[in-house]
Amino acid sequence: MLNFQFFMPTRLIFGPGSLAQLGDTAHLPKGEKAMIFIGASGAMVQNGYLARVQGLLAEQGVRSVVYDKVRPNPESAQVEEAAQTCRELGVDFLVGLGGGSTIDTAKAVALLATNPGSYWDYMQGGSGGKMETEHPGLPLVAIPTTAGTGTEADPWTVITKTGSQEKIGFGTDQTFPALSIVDPELMVSLSPRQTAYTGMDAFFHAVESYLNTRRSPMNDMLAMEAVNLIGLYLPDAVADGANMEARTALAWASTAAGICETIGGCISHHSLEHALSGFNPDLPHGAGLVLLAPHYFKRLGEMAPQRFSDLALALGDEEAQQRPEADGPALFLAQLVELIQSVGLADEKLTDYGFSEDQADALAQNAFENMGKLFPVTPAKMSHDDVAGIFRAAINA
Amino acid sequence: MLNFQFFMPTRLIFGPGSLAQLGDTAHLPKGEKAMIFIGASGAMVQNGYLARVQGLLAEQGVRSVVYDKVRPNPESAQVEEAAQTCRELGVDFLVGLGGGSTIDTAKAVALLATNPGSYWDYMQGGSGGKMETEHPGLPLVAIPTTAGTGTEADPWTVITKTGSQEKIGFGTDQTFPALSIVDPELMVSLSPRQTAYTGMDAFFHAVESYLNTRRSPMNDMLAMEAVNLIGLYLPDAVADGANMEARTALAWASTAAGICETIGGCISHHSLEHALSGFNPDLPHGAGLVLLAPHYFKRLGEMAPQRFSDLALALGDEEAQQRPEADGPALFLAQLVELIQSVGLADEKLTDYGFSEDQADALAQNAFENMGKLFPVTPAKMSHDDVAGIFRAAINA
Repeated sequence: MLNFQFFMPTRLIFGPGSLAQLGDTAHLPKGEKAMIFIGASGAMVQNGYLARVQGLLAEQGVRSVVYDKVRPNPESAQVEEAAQTCRELGVDFLVGLGGGSTIDTAKAVALLATNPGSYWDYMQGGSGGKMETEHPGLPLVAIPTTAGTGTEADPWTVITKTGSQEKIGFGTDQTFPALSIVDPELMVSLSPRQTAYTGMDAFFHAVESYLNTRRSPMNDMLAMEAVNLIGLYLPDAVADGANMEARTALAWASTAAGICETIGGCISHHSLEHALSGFNPDLPHGAGLVLLAPHYFKRLGEMAPQRFSDLALALGDEEAQQRPEADGPALFLAQLVELIQSVGLADEKLTDYGFSEDQADALAQNAFENMGKLFPVTPAKMSHDDVAGIFRAAINA
Repeated sequence: MLNFQFFMPTRLIFGPGSLAQLGDTAHLPKGEKAMIFIGASGAMVQNGYLARVQGLLAEQGVRSVVYDKVRPNPESAQVEEAAQTCRELGVDFLVGLGGGSTIDTAKAVALLATNPGSYWDYMQGGSGGKMETEHPGLPLVAIPTTAGTGTEADPWTVITKTGSQEKIGFGTDQTFPALSIVDPELMVSLSPRQTAYTGMDAFFHAVESYLNTRRSPMNDMLAMEAVNLIGLYLPDAVADGANMEARTALAWASTAAGICETIGGCISHHSLEHALSGFNPDLPHGAGLVLLAPHYFKRLGEMAPQRFSDLALALGDEEAQQRPEADGPALFLAQLVELIQSVGLADEKLTDYGFSEDQADALAQNAFENMGKLFPVTPAKMSHDDVAGIFRAAINA
């Protein structure tokens, strides 16, 4: 029988041009002092987004300071540094402006700014201290400039422990953004390759939550919508970044898939990718997912073929549901390979990122140790050897 | 372009048997003293639901007092009386156990218990004082025992001003339940006629929010799902109240339609019904909606035929989307009349509830005065004469 929970307390303001509402929404967190997080690449400054956000906050009487050191695969030392600054300055709320790394850093800082100790004290996997937070975090406004992470609609923040290969997703009821403004106009500046990486990340959030053993009708409908929209529009957005119809559809697909991460959640495909980018922080998360996917979903499909035909249908194979269930994985994989080609990611290789076959066992061990909690919600029981075999196949591909 | 907001902060726990989680969920509002609201009919006592809820609260160390005077179409004097009792007893949170009237009363009391003045001071329509509340309300746990109101997933509470014909829906960000436990097992005790009334209420929440000019993809998918499930399962639940598959599908449809009330919202069909049950509080809300619907949607379809064919499709007319848009309303109306018959409500008449044609103008005036805010989101501009004409046709039917 149908049993599920739903809890997604973030207020979403969605649509082209919606950033302007930051200047007059009654739903801005209370306070006069904000810290804005942006990436170290300088893109938020060059595109004028930072100045716009600061101006809109000023219209609401809010002064802001900027933390501009966030890098891809953000690290716990930065979280601790920024949290300390928040406490010293008496910051009232945080704004994360950028991609997943930026918003995730802001989420982690929001929590640590009001709680004692180090960030890793609160991690529940790896070498984490498994402590519970005592206080709610500072309120957070998320303003994504990519369509991928879904972090605007979920509680998760993914941080790597400084000096280690532990990359762990963490979240509580306290780590949802209070307000997320999802404006597809902020996404047109994204390069074709970044568009493809982030779009495929959103794609796998939807695919994985659809396969997750924790089911609900809301998750199913949002996941199907996201898979369908990404299949239709991601090639268009990669080909023409200024295509606002495609950017809008992808922004909604990413947010919908973010809600899926909240109510359904990723499965062990994401555990395997965290191991890869834990080993090599220069591997973009979306690239890691794409490089694992044909091998991961092939093995999963052999063990648990259920629901794959629905995914193939959502990707445009209208005959998929008339075929036997056992054919579903192959039909989905055919659509997946075509999608990866059409978004220009078929040329990537794990060996180009320095991976070699002899790391397969260590990577499998890392996946279980740091993100082991996603294995029990994966619809088949994967052993260490299964996972090492997937890594080996992906590295040898 | 696609622009929308989403905000539905209630935590939903859904599924057969889920009431048991009241005894151990970590998400119960804080406090040691609760006030439980139940209807005056005695059904919650006779079915043993009240004792179960009190026992489960006791497992969490919560003592409870009971307010057992709620009647259909609840009135403001009761809200004020119960709010005063809450203040005197120092109640920490409220529990609404029952149908829409009960949970709505608890919602209104939650707000007034922490705010000064009378309930009508805060109403924004009719003779309301149009004041803003100063404080958040007490937290509320909603436990619906009908599948209809959707109040478990929306901020709305519908209260009639004592001694008047003003029946007004009201809600703010503060009036969402903190926690809603939706257990279809609590719905098997509902009579066939109450099942039909409440199920048709949920049906119209979904239909109206689908037609509402305020559109969003989340609203569309939830509304289509609810219309489809109610069309499929409401006749079954009316025929056999113990059919748990039907009860579960309807409970989810009602909650999904409740989320639609939050993000999309009802249109003026509901304004017209509030006028009817404002005039005669013995008219069940669902009956009023059903008796108006063929006439209301006929007139609306003449003025704005868009999207009706989608509704006909969701009700099983698979050819509907191949027909011209202008045919949509007739196709939907044919499905609607069939549904009303199959749930046993084709024998109702407004004249049996004491209505007469000469009230049409006064009813139209009431609809605009008290629930006028739903007319601007209706997809066609209806005049007083349009609305009076719909009342006249419905009363003469």
